[in-house]
Amino acid sequence: MLTFDYRKRVRYGETDMMGYLYYGNYAQLYEIGRVEMMRSIGLSYRKMEEKYRVMMPVVEVQARYIKPARYDEELTIRTTLQSLPGRIITFFNDILSEDGHVIHRATVRLVFINMDTGKAVACPPYLMDGLKSYF
Amino acid sequence: MLTFDYRKRVRYGETDMMGYLYYGNYAQLYEIGRVEMMRSIGLSYRKMEEKYRVMMPVVEVQARYIKPARYDEELTIRTTLQSLPGRIITFFNDILSEDGHVIHRATVRLVFINMDTGKAVACPPYLMDGLKSYF
Amino acid sequence: MLTFDYRKRVRYGETDMMGYLYYGNYAQLYEIGRVEMMRSIGLSYRKMEEKYRVMMPVVEVQARYIKPARYDEELTIRTTLQSLPGRIITFFNDILSEDGHVIHRATVRLVFINMDTGKAVACPPYLMDGLKSYF
Amino acid sequence: MLTFDYRKRVRYGETDMMGYLYYGNYAQLYEIGRVEMMRSIGLSYRKMEEKYRVMMPVVEVQARYIKPARYDEELTIRTTLQSLPGRIITFFNDILSEDGHVIHRATVRLVFINMDTGKAVACPPYLMDGLKSYF
Repeated sequence: MLTFDYRKRVRYGETDMMGYLYYGNYAQLYEIGRVEMMRSIGLSYRKMEEKYRVMMPVVEVQARYIKPARYDEELTIRTTLQSLPGRIITFFNDILSEDGHVIHRATVRLVFINMDTGKAVACPPYLMDGLKSYF
Repeated sequence: MLTFDYRKRVRYGETDMMGYLYYGNYAQLYEIGRVEMMRSIGLSYRKMEEKYRVMMPVVEVQARYIKPARYDEELTIRTTLQSLPGRIITFFNDILSEDGHVIHRATVRLVFINMDTGKAVACPPYLMDGLKSYF
Repeated sequence: MLTFDYRKRVRYGETDMMGYLYYGNYAQLYEIGRVEMMRSIGLSYRKMEEKYRVMMPVVEVQARYIKPARYDEELTIRTTLQSLPGRIITFFNDILSEDGHVIHRATVRLVFINMDTGKAVACPPYLMDGLKSYF
Repeated sequence: MLTFDYRKRVRYGETDMMGYLYYGNYAQLYEIGRVEMMRSIGLSYRKMEEKYRVMMPVVEVQARYIKPARYDEELTIRTTLQSLPGRIITFFNDILSEDGHVIHRATVRLVFINMDTGKAVACPPYLMDGLKSYF
């Protein structure tokens, strides 16, 4: 299993008139979470696209909004990978408030697409090799 | 049952470097869909907040990304309410491509919060009365 | 001279905790304004990129925020081209409130870049030919 | 004079189909820059709103886009205050690429509004006292 925490502050432009982080902006948190988790073990999403020509579009999101996130709060994006990817990779994202409570939970599934053929492929070796030692 | 279609074009600023509508921006489409459905039967979300002091935060989103949406494409946001709300209201959103295929599906659940007490309440009469005749 | 009006409603996700349209979201209005002005005279920005391989990055923005825009307000984006483009094209954007007052003014300058060479070029014939008869 | 540097990575959702940071998203960088500059000298924008009931809407932006910013690049937001605020506060924002070049320059002017009266006021003592020793 692999888990990684990353801090992200709620910005003014991300709030809405309720005064909370707009519900549509959590997807950006999941993105930050998975990219920074990859970076934490030496993997670069950008390199995967540029060098290995594989992109990872999202195919499914399941999200529960438990409590709102306030302006200027420093959230923790906790990203977990519970198993090695096959043709699908599943990230679990818990968002924690500044005082440590889980305020949001999401499951995000992505696939691997060869950018030259447009076809779905298995998890590329670059990513798999980086992940293996954690499972 | 109540269904409403609303057209929305994909803007440059809503795309990402894949060249498609960024996955995080679909939440804005659901919002547009439910607000415009309400407007189509004479209900105003803004009035519900301002006059009746009830807001509707999202508590759950389930979304499937079937095909990408391209820049400048005129999408159809098809919003459906299958039953009258109780303490929860559930909107089903189908996003259709310009040529009529369902490219995205989401189920979005919201609750009703009294803005003065911060407490969850039942669907306010303003909304219920407007919806009743359709069910 | 060429002027075009386009209506755009302020969405919840575009407001911030002040309760107004977030100042960073006006740039999306300018984009909508210039693309819809082009469409109104039969020109497609997307086609310009795809077929003629010219893109138009913004090089300068000057903006004055006169009054705030409220949630759910139907704004008018008034886009004006005062002269034919050379290597730079300058759009003037007035944003009008629902009751017809100018609440925002911007001048936006863009250049033409050949997408294959990455070099700045003159206004492509596709665009120039479409614009000529208005000046 | 007061200058502060803050690092911010370009996220996927902030790019557009050109593959660069969307021009409309720079405004979020200015916001981050000025809020983090304030935090660096012990001032909280949130506290200014909550405790002192003063908000700071933007009234003017002048921006020059010199070079594009790429996905995943770690930009530096350099925020400078050249003089003490009066009824207007002017921030200068230079955005530097990962290799240290200025790729964007903006001047952003904001005013102070008493949130209870809606009237413009002078720079509140909370902010002025925090800034004074730097000028």
